[in-house]
Amino acid sequence: MRILVLGGDGYCGWPTALYLSSCGHDVAIADNFHRRSWDHELGAQTLTPIRPLTERLRTWQRRTGREIESFIGNILEYEFLAGVMREFEPEAVVHFAEQRSAPYSMIDRQHAVFSQVNNVVGTLNVLFAIKEFQPDCHLVKLGTMGEYGTPNIDIEEGYLRIRHNGREDVLPYPKQPGSFYHLSKVHDSHNIHFCCKIWGIRATDLNQGVVYGTVTDETALDPALVNRFDYDEVFGTALNRFCAQAAIEHPLTVYGKGGQTRGFLDIRDTVRCIELACMNPAARGEFRVFNQFTEQFSVLDLAQMVHIAGERLGLTVTIDHLPDPRVEAEEHYYNAKHTKLAELGLKPHLLSESLLDSLVNIAIEHRDRVDVNLLLPRVNWRNSRNDRRAKPAISAVAAD
Amino acid sequence: MRILVLGGDGYCGWPTALYLSSCGHDVAIADNFHRRSWDHELGAQTLTPIRPLTERLRTWQRRTGREIESFIGNILEYEFLAGVMREFEPEAVVHFAEQRSAPYSMIDRQHAVFSQVNNVVGTLNVLFAIKEFQPDCHLVKLGTMGEYGTPNIDIEEGYLRIRHNGREDVLPYPKQPGSFYHLSKVHDSHNIHFCCKIWGIRATDLNQGVVYGTVTDETALDPALVNRFDYDEVFGTALNRFCAQAAIEHPLTVYGKGGQTRGFLDIRDTVRCIELACMNPAARGEFRVFNQFTEQFSVLDLAQMVHIAGERLGLTVTIDHLPDPRVEAEEHYYNAKHTKLAELGLKPHLLSESLLDSLVNIAIEHRDRVDVNLLLPRVNWRNSRNDRRAKPAISAVAAD
Repeated sequence: MRILVLGGDGYCGWPTALYLSSCGHDVAIADNFHRRSWDHELGAQTLTPIRPLTERLRTWQRRTGREIESFIGNILEYEFLAGVMREFEPEAVVHFAEQRSAPYSMIDRQHAVFSQVNNVVGTLNVLFAIKEFQPDCHLVKLGTMGEYGTPNIDIEEGYLRIRHNGREDVLPYPKQPGSFYHLSKVHDSHNIHFCCKIWGIRATDLNQGVVYGTVTDETALDPALVNRFDYDEVFGTALNRFCAQAAIEHPLTVYGKGGQTRGFLDIRDTVRCIELACMNPAARGEFRVFNQFTEQFSVLDLAQMVHIAGERLGLTVTIDHLPDPRVEAEEHYYNAKHTKLAELGLKPHLLSESLLDSLVNIAIEHRDRVDVNLLLPRVNWRNSRNDRRAKPAISAVAAD
Repeated sequence: MRILVLGGDGYCGWPTALYLSSCGHDVAIADNFHRRSWDHELGAQTLTPIRPLTERLRTWQRRTGREIESFIGNILEYEFLAGVMREFEPEAVVHFAEQRSAPYSMIDRQHAVFSQVNNVVGTLNVLFAIKEFQPDCHLVKLGTMGEYGTPNIDIEEGYLRIRHNGREDVLPYPKQPGSFYHLSKVHDSHNIHFCCKIWGIRATDLNQGVVYGTVTDETALDPALVNRFDYDEVFGTALNRFCAQAAIEHPLTVYGKGGQTRGFLDIRDTVRCIELACMNPAARGEFRVFNQFTEQFSVLDLAQMVHIAGERLGLTVTIDHLPDPRVEAEEHYYNAKHTKLAELGLKPHLLSESLLDSLVNIAIEHRDRVDVNLLLPRVNWRNSRNDRRAKPAISAVAAD
């Protein structure tokens, strides 16, 4: 199958592109390196030293004999995207090419507007390009479990059968997103659903949980194929951040009580879910929603697991409860369904002691790269302006 | 009360500004004349000859002794909007400053992207400006009944109590908007709801039905105060368009079976609803939703009423059923609640024979201004590119 991976240089996109290539698909990547430039902006870097995309792709070809084509450009420029669609003629487009950090979107007005315009217009362009150049192509779009928020009822996969005043309908599940980023994904979902209806586009919206881990079978083949491992307060997801904190014996930063419960999955399952979605496309006109996660944990659960893993490895690990910089329920009901990908054959990698040990070990290996100034939350949802500029002098003092 | 009307030069904004001023409020208008420039783009004009904003405001002051301040600029430019907020210090912001035509948003990719970026970023800017400069100010935002679509259950006002698997919650009513424009309003609603939650903003989302009529007590005071009356396929709403068609004995253009049922209201009720919302503000942090319409009609109901009114006035009126250029249910269940504004004191102007006669008479008075080339639908939802450029030569032939 010919699969185009938009955002194929990022944390999920890169291992996905490799996995799809290893499965024998013809894969192309489109990327504009936004993710790498946000690191420059924030003064951050991935814990694992990643290589330039050209070197990554050369190494993959040398190691496996498989070629992954690359297109460098911004999908917000329609002429670029149209050119990619015409040249590569994908049968599936996997769309990771969005700003994916909630704190980044909450820094200030410019970052909120950027996140929404970037994500919404990029996805609109993808929809128009499919309609105009590859109408039978299947859109596999990365959404987020955060679109649902934390309702007091069970979370279903995209739709809910509702009985009301003696009548009944199946309607889109109500959305309560918790950041300008999460909102952008809700906007995308509505836009995609509409285009499926009017143009007969095939789409699968993967409402993904929080991803952890960094290594897949493919990225492990060569040091030049190593994947990102973000640990900073803006782009680092909870479990990865805790592992980096444990590695340098910095307190694990739990926000509030830590009762915030979410769906999680191993990056090795992310790449498998994408392939399952591609191989089992939505029908023409169908807007299909899968909840893409394998287990639920509270943030405090994760911190306690990292605490134990760290001690097992001889580290002194403590847990700090910081005031929650986000506006969210710190304790709540949470029961989200996730059966559709399992029905397609997903065999989950559940979070295990050995995985936790390996994650902490990766963090230990690279601990000289951890910048302690990037660990504490500096983006507060209650402010409309948060100063995230890197300030070397002041930060050096604050780090003492 | 100090009330800022964003989009105060438009079809709903202008009579609202006058009504609020006549009630004794201190009113300011902000507008960038986008609405007038879209007429230039489409080769269209309002049936009623409207005057420049400066002349409108001078006339209002001369007639009533009341001054309405004006700020000319685009709310997408944050410095402009911030300056208005700092200078005028509004207690309520009434936000009409959006692209409001479904067909306009469906012309092509550029118009879709423009409609969503313009509306979403404008509203984000308003939210940030309220947070940063007037945190106690009440946002009165124009949404649309079209956010709900046509579900097979009763439509409630913004929220729905849902029981599911033995648990219960009150959640945002599921949205099924039917154009890129309607989608932009859904995006706005989600963004506003979130900002109420994180920043304690007060907001009322007025999910307005389709507005008809053109005259209010205030616009009738002087010919220079006359309001817009759009009849073209892009900006003309159903009833006003039918009246213009009847006036020139052009068949009334009903799309499909005409069973599409919507909420409607008289423009004299629009202005009253806005004042009621301003005088009864939402609480800090409250995201309040009112359905702002007074009666439900099907499109065919309206055409038949205009048919009868036209014949009463000696016109020969026929009804044409055209293939529906929109993707929508042509027959469906529709029962939408609209009690909250009535509870605040709204006394509706129901659609009457005398109002229909007066609307058709206004159209007859200005029938020399009707361009028949603008009556038939040229924007089809099923296409991603619709040619709406004015083509004088070709149109002259087509008009024969």
